Amino acid sequence: MQTTSSLDKFFAPKSIMVIGASRSPGKAGNIMLENILANGYQGRVYPVNPNADEILGFKCYPTVGDIPEVPDLAVMAVPAAAALAAVKDCAQKRVSALVMTTSGFAEVDDTGAKLQAQILEVAKGAGMRIMGPNTSGITSTPSRFSVSIFPLGMIRKSPISCLAQTGNFATHTMKWILTGEHFGVSRVAGLGNMIDVDESEVLEYFGRDPETKAIVIYLEGFKNAGRFLEIAKQVCRKKPIIALKAGRTESGVRAVASHTASLASNDLIVDAAFRQAGIVRVQSYTTLIDTAKVLALQPIPKGNRVAVLTPSGAMGIIAADACERLGLKMADLSQKSFQELGTIFPSYVNVGNPIDIWGAAMIHGVYEAYEKGMRVALEDEGIDAVLSIMNLSPETVFGSHELDPEKLSFIPELCQEFPDKVVMVAVSGAKSYYEAAKQYLEEHSVPVFLPVEPALEALAYINQCRRYLIWDP
Amino acid sequence: MQTTSSLDKFFAPKSIMVIGASRSPGKAGNIMLENILANGYQGRVYPVNPNADEILGFKCYPTVGDIPEVPDLAVMAVPAAAALAAVKDCAQKRVSALVMTTSGFAEVDDTGAKLQAQILEVAKGAGMRIMGPNTSGITSTPSRFSVSIFPLGMIRKSPISCLAQTGNFATHTMKWILTGEHFGVSRVAGLGNMIDVDESEVLEYFGRDPETKAIVIYLEGFKNAGRFLEIAKQVCRKKPIIALKAGRTESGVRAVASHTASLASNDLIVDAAFRQAGIVRVQSYTTLIDTAKVLALQPIPKGNRVAVLTPSGAMGIIAADACERLGLKMADLSQKSFQELGTIFPSYVNVGNPIDIWGAAMIHGVYEAYEKGMRVALEDEGIDAVLSIMNLSPETVFGSHELDPEKLSFIPELCQEFPDKVVMVAVSGAKSYYEAAKQYLEEHSVPVFLPVEPALEALAYINQCRRYLIWDP
Repeated sequence: MQTTSSLDKFFAPKSIMVIGASRSPGKAGNIMLENILANGYQGRVYPVNPNADEILGFKCYPTVGDIPEVPDLAVMAVPAAAALAAVKDCAQKRVSALVMTTSGFAEVDDTGAKLQAQILEVAKGAGMRIMGPNTSGITSTPSRFSVSIFPLGMIRKSPISCLAQTGNFATHTMKWILTGEHFGVSRVAGLGNMIDVDESEVLEYFGRDPETKAIVIYLEGFKNAGRFLEIAKQVCRKKPIIALKAGRTESGVRAVASHTASLASNDLIVDAAFRQAGIVRVQSYTTLIDTAKVLALQPIPKGNRVAVLTPSGAMGIIAADACERLGLKMADLSQKSFQELGTIFPSYVNVGNPIDIWGAAMIHGVYEAYEKGMRVALEDEGIDAVLSIMNLSPETVFGSHELDPEKLSFIPELCQEFPDKVVMVAVSGAKSYYEAAKQYLEEHSVPVFLPVEPALEALAYINQCRRYLIWDP
Repeated sequence: MQTTSSLDKFFAPKSIMVIGASRSPGKAGNIMLENILANGYQGRVYPVNPNADEILGFKCYPTVGDIPEVPDLAVMAVPAAAALAAVKDCAQKRVSALVMTTSGFAEVDDTGAKLQAQILEVAKGAGMRIMGPNTSGITSTPSRFSVSIFPLGMIRKSPISCLAQTGNFATHTMKWILTGEHFGVSRVAGLGNMIDVDESEVLEYFGRDPETKAIVIYLEGFKNAGRFLEIAKQVCRKKPIIALKAGRTESGVRAVASHTASLASNDLIVDAAFRQAGIVRVQSYTTLIDTAKVLALQPIPKGNRVAVLTPSGAMGIIAADACERLGLKMADLSQKSFQELGTIFPSYVNVGNPIDIWGAAMIHGVYEAYEKGMRVALEDEGIDAVLSIMNLSPETVFGSHELDPEKLSFIPELCQEFPDKVVMVAVSGAKSYYEAAKQYLEEHSVPVFLPVEPALEALAYINQCRRYLIWDP
């Protein structure tokens, strides 16, 4: 399934040419080929390098002109000084989509600004679209490739796409997401200096893209704010859009100028405009990633009613406070839920939501009590999302000194049984148990957080997105 | 060094009697002895158990009356039904300090409430002070013991003390802090139902305690709010006080009632009163722990001027935004700092704060660039705190596939060289590198966070505390 926009050549190319391909590990022109290889790209790959016969198993070509077809996508990792000539080669070859990772343009000085203007002129004359320069690359898991300049290995597929005016989401942040948070992406567009393809066009593409369920944005400035907001107004009705707009404050604004050469806008205007356009603005980078994780791994909830299972009275109260502060609602349990929880709770426990599960865990064991408690909550028609705060330590699960993560398999199983409800887990207790649970559960699409608030904060942002949707999630 | 308050018997006892001592691993009366043993307690220990000669190497006594001295501290892990009789035994023995971990009192029902009233009467008649019931124990690292009912192992010492109306800080949260965040505590008082020793008395004790540099509080309600606030007004001038007051919202208030049986107060009044009393209120549990970590590991800064080293323009902008939003100030670099940074930066980089260190790292290597950059910032008299955001991955440090944490030894060394300045690190990139760096650095007293905001949020709360201090930190 492909959309018809011109950006298809960027995100679903049948062939990729790498200008500046290198044999040296660690060089951008080598890493790009590594990333193409690691992700199992099925199209044709054409490294351009006059001094090599092959690199990483790909046959090399001395010049762009020597490539035996017009490649769908060209990516370029040559120094700024060589960039104009290489762009001209691409134009002559009738390349229609070019990703320029080269930096040293408008973000550095006036000479760079002039050079990027010349490059744009050549591209326009040839009908060639450019992403960048000063981008760290793009990724498209539905087409099984990445041309990031940072070695990422195999990138897990998920239905979220990222529009980023920073290289972070193609480099170290993506590395962290893949190795530390265990979720993946659909498309990633690193916009760089946006001399041609801009925020609006990418947002529109993601809006139509059947491989994109939700959109995660990092932006410092706009090329055309009006157009972007108009497009968002349409897209937000179909897909959640969350955004971190940086350069909010005086200090941030000063720092933006030397980063992507864009002018930061008045922050309050941005706030209001985003709200009108259906873009949910998050406050922090950490929260952006937390929210992206829940969007990547879980469904969009049908409502804001939350049940919380907790191993401690205090954590339940803190969770209840957080829900109310964040616009979520601690769900009222149904009569049926009360009755069913009553069968596993000791007589002295007051059953309610937050569900203080520890009394039941002491009787039935941690796993059985949580499985029963979570099932009751998921069966309750008055509940849209469940946060299960688990205290996992050798002494609480009465096991050996390492957690057997398979004991938690009931959680992904419950997710499959109740595919419309959001399930999240927070883990307290021993670090090694936290890590083992996090890795296992996230690999099985259950997001894991530290207690108490981060999971609820992510859910609250998704809940805000939900209000703009015109379909029933 | 000991203070003269009556709570010395709780926190600096020369002998401890354990009523309800058990041979069975996993039972509270066994775990307490384990915790006493694991922390190297130097005093005398008297387990009471009529059916055992010794437990974990400690000689047992059949009854309280058989103990050969009046123990400074008694701790009790017997069921509620046996509690009154045990309290009477303690009274008869002329015990003056008793920690009651037993639960099943006012937090459960009226019968429990009556029972705890009877217990209090007995204690008052005998001049015995009680902490609890329904506490999960207390800890005092200066006296090298814990009587938590949760096995904690050796607890690292630090100068922060916790006043907690929840068992979490003596159990799974403490386990997480010790194993996942690598910091320790001085004293921990789990208040439980507060039938006798209350929030005010503990705060006053911590205020005078030479082993306590800062105070971390979790409270759901007050026994005597007026007195607590009066004491805080004095203590906040000498020591930072940070607090999470739960039961903020309607849902939270309902949940409190069934937890520690205290009435949650009107939240806005609490806000105002805390501000007047010099207590800095944090918004979330996660932030409470993050802030406690910085207080435990780093000095209190002399001002709010921050320098940020960043591997990416975007993260620098985000950090600048966060600083301004949080009441911190992105410091202006001195002329000398500009000059010195200029010597390691490539010519095309605009030197400023945030310090975009990646250009320098590409030339000099990650470690050398960060060491030089951090040193320049720490030597700058216009800077009070440094956040160093590091991108650590096999490809960025050009090392083997595992991080050699000793390469980061320059960071704790810089801390020793500049003991008045706060140093914090955030790590992006590969998870295994993050974990190795976090463990090494935190064990060497440098707090580590995920990028970008959590470290700055913690620092901002400490900065709020600083404003109340009348001494020059």
